[in-house]
Parts: sequence; C-alpha cells; structure tokens
Amino acid sequence: MLKSPSNPKGTRDFLPLTLSRRNYILDIIKYNFKLFGFLEIETPALEKSSTLLGKYGNEGDRLVFKILNSGDKIKKADMIALEQCNLSTFTNSISEKGLRYDLTVPLARFVAQHQNDLVFPFKRFQIQNVWRADRPQHGRFQEFTQCDADVIGSKSIVQEIELIKLYDSVFSQLGFDDLIFKINHRNILTALANYMGAKSKLNEFISIIDKLDKIGIENVVIEVKNLIKNVSVSKLSNLLSEKEISILKLNKLFGESSQAKRGIDELNTILEFISDNKCIKNEIKLDITLARGLNYYTGTIIEVISKSNRAIGSLGGGGRYDNLTSLFNLKNTSGVGISFGLDRIYLDMEEKNMFPVDLGNHFDIIIINFGINYIKKLYPLIDLLRQNGKKISIYPDKAKLNKQFSYADKHKISKAIIMGENESDNNEIIIKNMITGTQSNHSISEVNSTLF
Amino acid sequence: MLKSPSNPKGTRDFLPLTLSRRNYILDIIKYNFKLFGFLEIETPALEKSSTLLGKYGNEGDRLVFKILNSGDKIKKADMIALEQCNLSTFTNSISEKGLRYDLTVPLARFVAQHQNDLVFPFKRFQIQNVWRADRPQHGRFQEFTQCDADVIGSKSIVQEIELIKLYDSVFSQLGFDDLIFKINHRNILTALANYMGAKSKLNEFISIIDKLDKIGIENVVIEVKNLIKNVSVSKLSNLLSEKEISILKLNKLFGESSQAKRGIDELNTILEFISDNKCIKNEIKLDITLARGLNYYTGTIIEVISKSNRAIGSLGGGGRYDNLTSLFNLKNTSGVGISFGLDRIYLDMEEKNMFPVDLGNHFDIIIINFGINYIKKLYPLIDLLRQNGKKISIYPDKAKLNKQFSYADKHKISKAIIMGENESDNNEIIIKNMITGTQSNHSISEVNSTLF
Repeated sequence: MLKSPSNPKGTRDFLPLTLSRRNYILDIIKYNFKLFGFLEIETPALEKSSTLLGKYGNEGDRLVFKILNSGDKIKKADMIALEQCNLSTFTNSISEKGLRYDLTVPLARFVAQHQNDLVFPFKRFQIQNVWRADRPQHGRFQEFTQCDADVIGSKSIVQEIELIKLYDSVFSQLGFDDLIFKINHRNILTALANYMGAKSKLNEFISIIDKLDKIGIENVVIEVKNLIKNVSVSKLSNLLSEKEISILKLNKLFGESSQAKRGIDELNTILEFISDNKCIKNEIKLDITLARGLNYYTGTIIEVISKSNRAIGSLGGGGRYDNLTSLFNLKNTSGVGISFGLDRIYLDMEEKNMFPVDLGNHFDIIIINFGINYIKKLYPLIDLLRQNGKKISIYPDKAKLNKQFSYADKHKISKAIIMGENESDNNEIIIKNMITGTQSNHSISEVNSTLF
Repeated sequence: MLKSPSNPKGTRDFLPLTLSRRNYILDIIKYNFKLFGFLEIETPALEKSSTLLGKYGNEGDRLVFKILNSGDKIKKADMIALEQCNLSTFTNSISEKGLRYDLTVPLARFVAQHQNDLVFPFKRFQIQNVWRADRPQHGRFQEFTQCDADVIGSKSIVQEIELIKLYDSVFSQLGFDDLIFKINHRNILTALANYMGAKSKLNEFISIIDKLDKIGIENVVIEVKNLIKNVSVSKLSNLLSEKEISILKLNKLFGESSQAKRGIDELNTILEFISDNKCIKNEIKLDITLARGLNYYTGTIIEVISKSNRAIGSLGGGGRYDNLTSLFNLKNTSGVGISFGLDRIYLDMEEKNMFPVDLGNHFDIIIINFGINYIKKLYPLIDLLRQNGKKISIYPDKAKLNKQFSYADKHKISKAIIMGENESDNNEIIIKNMITGTQSNHSISEVNSTLF
C-alpha cells in the first residue's frame, strides 16, 4: 500500500478558486506596474551559491535552499568537514547552486550582468516565487510569491512619490480605503539614535524602536534602558507617544545635523507633494520609528499598514538603498523599490470578503452531452461562441442528465445548452438558465453570444 | 575584485522584450485554455523525493534536482554509502525533496491528494516552470516553462477532439497556418509491431519506428533488421513510404484484432468529426509511426509539427494515459492531455518574424522632467491619463532634454508630454509626437486620453 501522497510541508497546492483570487490580486498589481512605467523581467529560480550566499547574514545563508550537485560531482563531498561538524564547508563541497531567497539580490546580479543591455534609470518589476528553508508554521511558507517594483539608477525623490501613488492605486483598485502608508528616513533614525545617546549602539537601538507597534511604548522603553545607561526615559517616551510628529518639530529636534536635515527635507517634499495634490485615497503618515531592518535602507522607508487589521502586519514595504548593486561591483546606482505582500493581502481580503463573487465562475456555458453526434452538430455553434469569448465546457461524457446538471451547479455555470433528439430533429437548442431554472428553445441558426 | 556575476548555465534571465513575447504566447494559450473549460491550478516547485523518484526511469531520477536537507539534518549523511560509491543511497540520506521534473507527476499527486475537493471529470491547466539537471546545451535548459492541459476522469473521445481544436485555436491565433497535427493510437503501434513480427520486442521496435522523421526510412529499416531476424524488409518499407495511410487500409491490415480495431475506430471518429466540421485551420494527419515515448500513452497520441520548420521538432504533443494516477493509488481515472512547447514556439515565431511589432512598446507616454514642481503641476493630468489606461513613465530626473528624449527613443515611446516654464505659465503642455517630430500646444484642462 502506498502512503497517501502529499506536498511538502511549508508549500501549497493552489486549487482553482484560490488561484483565481491570487491572480485577481496579481493582475491588478501587474496592470499598475505597467501604468507606472515599469518593465517586467524574470530571473531563474536557480542562482549560483556565490550569488546568493553572504548577502543575507548568517541566518539568511542558513535559510537558502541548496541544490545537490548532480552525478559524479557529488563524490567530492568533504567528509572530513562533515566529521568535524563544519557543516557549511561540507555543504559547499556538494552544492554549487541554490534557490533564490528573494528577488532583490537576483535583481542586483541581473543589473550588474546586463548593464550594457539596459536603459538607465531602469524601472523593473518582477513577480516570481522565492524559497526559504524556514520552519513551516501557520502563515509562513517555504515557497511564496514576491511582487517587486524597483527603480535602479535615479536619486530623484519623484520615484518615492510615484511608488506611494502606485501603492495607493493598486490598493484602491483592490478595494482598500483604510490603509496607512507610513514613511520614515534612515537619516532620521540615525538622528533619533544620536538624540537618545545611542550613537555607538545604532543598530541595536533601531531594532528595538522598530518593534514599537508590536511590543508597545513601555516595553520599548524598558529595552532601551537596558541598552543605554542614563537614557532619558521621559524624552524617549514623550517622543514615542506623539501620534503624529510634525516636520517642524523634527527640524527643531534634529535640524542641526545636515544629514538629518536632508532626510527631513526629502520627507517634507514627499508629504507636501501628496497632500497638495490630494492624489491618494489612503492616508500617509510620518513614523519616526519605522525601520524595516535598518541595514538595508539608506534613504526613505515605506510601509503599508491596514488600520482595520494591524495584527496581520504590513501589506507591503520598501525604501531606498544606495549600495545594492555594489555587491556585484556596479557602483553609483541608487535604487528604490517597493514590494507587495501577496499572502497577507490575500488573507486580509478573504477575511473582509473583498473578492468579487464571480471569481469562482470559471465557465459561461456548459454543453449537455447526449452523445458525440449531437456534439458534432453543435460544434460550429460552440466554435462561434468561443470566438466571441464565451468560456464553454462540453460535459465530457454522455452521462445521466442529473449528473451533468450537478457538474454545472458545482462549477456555478449559469447557462446550459441542451440538444437531444427532439431538438436536433428541429434544428433547435434549449438554453437553460441554471440559476432560475427557466429555459427557452432557439433555432440553431439564430443563436449568438448575446443570448448568454 | 569580485568575479563578474552571472546566472547558472542552463538557466536564463528574461529581459523585457523577450519576456513580453513569451507572455504574448502564454496569454493566448491561457485565454484558450479558459475558453475550452480548463481550470488553472498551481503546485509547488518543491516535491517530496518519494513523489518524484521512481516515476521517470533511472535516467529521469538522475535528472531530478535534489534539495539538500537544512540545518542539522545534514549530519545524517550516509558516509559509508558514499565510500562504497552508492551515490543514490548517499543522496537520499541528505535530501528529502526535489524540484519538479514535469507537471504530470505533480498533477497525478495533486488529483490523488485532493480527490475529495475536485469535481470530476477534472479539466485542469497548469503553466509553471520545471527543472532538469540535463547537461546545458543550445536550446536545452535546466529550467523551463511547461504549459499543460489535461482532463482526468473521462474516457470520452470528445476530449481528444477538443484538445486538437484547442491546439488549432491557439496556433491560429498565434499566426500559424502550416502545421500538421499528427495522430496515432497506441493500439495501432502494437498492431504494427505484431504485424512486423516484433511482438516480443515491442518497445525496441516502437522506439526505432518513432525516429522515422529524424533518421529516414532506410535507417529505420536497417535498425529494424538488426532487431528482428527474418523481418520482411519490403513489407516494412512499403508501409513506411505511404505518405498517408487510410483507415480502410488499416482495417484491412490490423482489423482482425479487436484491440487494434478499437484504436482504428477511435482515430476514425476523431478524423471524421474534424473533417465533417471543417473546424480546424491546420492539417490533421494519421501517422502510424508516431509514438512519443510509447510507455506513457495508452490510447491516442498527438503531435504538432511545423511544415516549414520540421527541424525544430514538435511544437506540442500529448495523448491519453490510463494509469497515471494509479501511481498514487487512485484507480480508474483515465487522463488525456496536451502540452505546448513554449521555447520552440518562441524560436519558430522569432525566426519567422511572427511577433506583433508593438510588443516592444512598453509605454504610451513619457513625461519630460523639468523639475519636481512641474511634475507636481502635471500630476493630476498624469493620474487622469493612467486612469484611462495610458502607460506613463515619468523621466525620473531633471536631466538634459537630449538625454530624456534618447530614453524615450530607446523605449520606442511615441508621445512625450512637455511642460517647461513657458508652458507652465500659460497652463499648457506640449504634446510631442516622437516619431514624426511634430508637436502641438494644449491647455492642460482640455487634455484627455483621446489625444494619445
């Protein structure tokens, strides 16, 4: 007896309804990426280990799925390394490739490799799967889809504005109207750390601050106190409790540093542009604690939060990074990009019943099957209707009528075409409305797609 | 100095033009899959080794990309097996998952696993990548896209007819009008082998016959002579040289076997249905040497060949298989399916200049950038035009006009919107036709999408 088959833990099969909902989201994202002037590219799932490893930190390296070398190459396994428990040396002796961990490092590799074939500034989007050897758990998958849009080779703040507008455009079309686009700037984070006396412990300080939404002000204060002796608790908690900090106040606090000033000015330009134009339907808000993993971003930082479902986490995020392609020896190509969190958007939309109800209606018409000769007689009509875009499923077998109607019902098909002996003799068909149960006879020659 | 980055051998990066051409093909395939009543599913790239291995023969097993176990699991490496050069035992000790090798075995696994959630007959299509550790060479890739449509759970010959019509519909829309849809039947192959006295060497005989197109009649005869003593060379070469064998003749030759008779009748039904209906634009032809890997198919066999480019090989193929899901313990679910050879279709279309020329035109309008204040003033107009579906790229930086126009030319953008100081003062824009060079001034308030 064979074991019952299953997909690996942490991966998913997508059945038709789920997939059509995912594609509904992806189609809207793709459509907007194109409206905003992004070009689509694809890179392979397989990348060289030298491309992938060393880019995501030790923890990230551990989570890269490694591909075993094929054939005799595997004989080069470094058994001594294994005996000595030097697992990464052992791994490298039998693996030269891995599955991409995100779309960002492949983008950097792609831009460096194809720089002579690309037109800069290069605006690309990419929607492909990535793989992470995370411990499978609820809502976290080993294989999932990333949707990224990035601009490589422009420092213009217009990009940030366009990306926020792009977010708003996509989410509005999906039906979201209660989102907050949080923005911040790396230079403000640095200024904030300096202001709190955490200059020498910048990264640790930022990663505590970044958790504000999750752990609350009190816990942030406790953790900061543990990190920095003599920190002014009142200064910190006053700052953190301000619901909305103004540009004016930021300038007052941090404006003496030219670096901080540049960050504040950039955010101010973005905020003014958007509020003067009233060009977004959702809300934009300065949040000086937003970091999204400090090391990566060098300028603006953006994150999308749902007011009505904060627990789900961010629905998207991004920012500016100046040094990414330098990993592959291509300098001076500032990048800025955003990403959509497909799985979270899906979950939030599902919880809120935001998907169009007809996404489950995959066909327009079912052809009831009374035998191949009747199908043969109907085939020119079927052809005509398909040419007019009607999605038609011919019931495959001459089965009992009940069975065929039940198939139609399960697929929510609203119209059936029926031609049995009587109808065939009269060159007629019956069109049956599967929802109301009403039906009507029509001469075959007069049937056209307007009847459906 | 870092080595220059590159993607792994046998894999590909797709730049925007190539990708838009691939998507042009895929969109037409997808559209027709839906018209013909197929539902889309997706399965993960990662499958358990127990699902993948043992399904494709020894050679196939060798070509499955194996994923190294993560973390400490790798310590279980069977070093004794490695020392004894028992490579597959060693591999299995450090790998429990692999990348799917095709979409067919995952489909069988999917159907067996989700049988209670599916409506049978189950018509599914799937367009996803597969991976094979083949030696990379020209036109053969380690990572490529398969496009499959299959019907599981119906023995009706209507499926075969629908699948041929589906082929015709897709290829006609792509612009192909000189294709041959070859068809054959497993039972005719068996009858042919019996007829030539190769009953005991069925598989070997068939695989020689299958090569007819590649190696020609003479070489086929030589190889068959080596296989079967006392074979009647004249009988064989007479049969093979018939350009088009008739159903009548087949019945005369093989009709005494009820099994062969069933195969002949099925093909006859298909051919009559199609010729009576004149429902395909390309040609359909019986070819009694068509096998496509005998062991797999149990009924009809189909293959798509381009008359004008036979060298490229088949552009698609498929057939009926009765035993696939029984691999996963699900019995009595006859399947029939077809596959499109995306890479070959692409190559053939490229050679013949069959792609629409405007696939390289990714944007409708470029906004010439004279600084953020002008962009700000233009933004409501940009928003309006995008809402009307215009794809707009704002040049990211305030750069020299030459540079911006050159960017537009490289992207083949046909219209530019220009607003400098003069225009702004008059609340006007210039619309420049980038192809003719002509330009015209328009009051901002009167601009709408009909001008583009």
